[in-house]
Amino acid sequence: MNALIAIDWGTTAARAYALDGAGTVTGTRSAPLGVQNVQDGRFAEALAALLGDWHDDPAPRIACGMIGSRQGWIEAPYVACPAQLPDLVAGLVHVPGSRLTIVPGVRTRDAYDVPDVMRGEETQIAGAIAARDERVLCALPGTHSKWACVDAGRLVDFLSFMTGEMWGVLLKHSILGRLAAPAAEGSEPGPAFGSGVARGLGPGNLAHDVFGARTLALMGELAAEDVADWLSGMMIAREIRNAGTWAHRHGYDGARVRLVGADALVARYAAAMHQADIAVEVAGSNAAAQGLWRIATLAGIVSSPTKSSGASSA
Amino acid sequence: MNALIAIDWGTTAARAYALDGAGTVTGTRSAPLGVQNVQDGRFAEALAALLGDWHDDPAPRIACGMIGSRQGWIEAPYVACPAQLPDLVAGLVHVPGSRLTIVPGVRTRDAYDVPDVMRGEETQIAGAIAARDERVLCALPGTHSKWACVDAGRLVDFLSFMTGEMWGVLLKHSILGRLAAPAAEGSEPGPAFGSGVARGLGPGNLAHDVFGARTLALMGELAAEDVADWLSGMMIAREIRNAGTWAHRHGYDGARVRLVGADALVARYAAAMHQADIAVEVAGSNAAAQGLWRIATLAGIVSSPTKSSGASSA
Repeated sequence: MNALIAIDWGTTAARAYALDGAGTVTGTRSAPLGVQNVQDGRFAEALAALLGDWHDDPAPRIACGMIGSRQGWIEAPYVACPAQLPDLVAGLVHVPGSRLTIVPGVRTRDAYDVPDVMRGEETQIAGAIAARDERVLCALPGTHSKWACVDAGRLVDFLSFMTGEMWGVLLKHSILGRLAAPAAEGSEPGPAFGSGVARGLGPGNLAHDVFGARTLALMGELAAEDVADWLSGMMIAREIRNAGTWAHRHGYDGARVRLVGADALVARYAAAMHQADIAVEVAGSNAAAQGLWRIATLAGIVSSPTKSSGASSA
Repeated sequence: MNALIAIDWGTTAARAYALDGAGTVTGTRSAPLGVQNVQDGRFAEALAALLGDWHDDPAPRIACGMIGSRQGWIEAPYVACPAQLPDLVAGLVHVPGSRLTIVPGVRTRDAYDVPDVMRGEETQIAGAIAARDERVLCALPGTHSKWACVDAGRLVDFLSFMTGEMWGVLLKHSILGRLAAPAAEGSEPGPAFGSGVARGLGPGNLAHDVFGARTLALMGELAAEDVADWLSGMMIAREIRNAGTWAHRHGYDGARVRLVGADALVARYAAAMHQADIAVEVAGSNAAAQGLWRIATLAGIVSSPTKSSGASSA
């Protein structure tokens, strides 16, 4: 019997996890039913399609991600940083007429008073921080990657980078695309990736260094099929370098990073970090489900794991 | 009677200038017949279309820009930096069966051994440097803007930035476009431009700061119609900041910059430089024509101005 159905509901995709009374994932469902792919607010139908045969399961549901944004099902307003688990619980929003509760996103302001936001990553971070007294720098690669300083279960501050999306649009829509052979986003990084990393770990201006991908190809120093890899390495490394500087200002030495996620992009970040002599720990791939479980437990949406282990076998 | 027909022949557009025996521009023609818009190598036809009623003029022709690239009419291989006017003359390439001579581009390598190139800007710089003993930092805004250190007529080094193209593709193809009202590229910068400049003149990572345009709009701190302007100011100012650091390494203090060009983009750079307390001189809008005249004169394609003033009245 499922104790909770936990949903990581993003912009393009949605993934549901069934968890038993001990908080263990027993099954998953996924669908390309992200918020931007749901028309006319038909989120109830999208949820039914995502859950499939779980639809009639009486377990409570909890979701994180863009589903709580203004473009989502119901808005769960951002909680201010620094944020702890009880702050996320206090910001939970229930979808009327349903069994679904939505986790709020988190907001902060950078050193120049420019706002920054996350939705979904706060929950992944909660799931990736097992020991509550840890002091850890987290990196969450993605279209808009996030770096987070976490201390004793508290999300102290975070910083977003548009690295992934910039890489994609530059290759697809700029002059770089005319010189580059198409690259699969999930492909294994080759030697050109390492050269790009070496460049990106140094100082520089991204608008100049991006142009370097073009001139290297133009001068025959980078093969067409390596342009995407070089650019990926350069941009990821530049992000790592700058995030390190930022973390340093928060009192983190940046020599150890916990990578949260499980896709090919995480492997690229890990490779770049190894090249930068940063010790990498990779959090489990179910961080969102684990974070949703912790939030649901604290909110009393499910009984706490110790109590529920008896109840779930009944 | 025309002494020279000088052509600035770029990627998207071509502009022809008629010059009299004193090197004065007496007329211009332009057409959207840039290199990428000419099919199947039909450059002779494109030139005839560009010149129109000048087509039968017996004056020699000289061109700079992408017309000398591998994708152009005939390749004029890059000359290495530092480059002087005689180096450009030595690299001139004649188009067989025509009266057209093409100016080579210039190449350099940045501090990290990544190649950089220009085609056309070397000629604009030659035209913008009137006094031969000047020591001046030049900025040439554009899709791929260039900064150049010039000393006594010698192009010491240069640096490219993809600022303009990145701005365009981000607004058109990234998440920023969904939050931004469309902006005309030539529009006057508003107050949001100044806010963006203030942000860009500080330190930071472009992939993070670009994301700031989204979060500012999301939080209601930047109107949809101001996103393009804020992003423009931020990216231009970041380029100015980084180019200043680069120029400093070459022994230029960066407190005075000569802007080369004449379009709306130059006005934006000038506004950002004023905000950064940089003294700005704007070179004449005919810098390419004037540079082509200097090169043609030195090459003996036209007689030198002092001699020709008599000849042209004959």
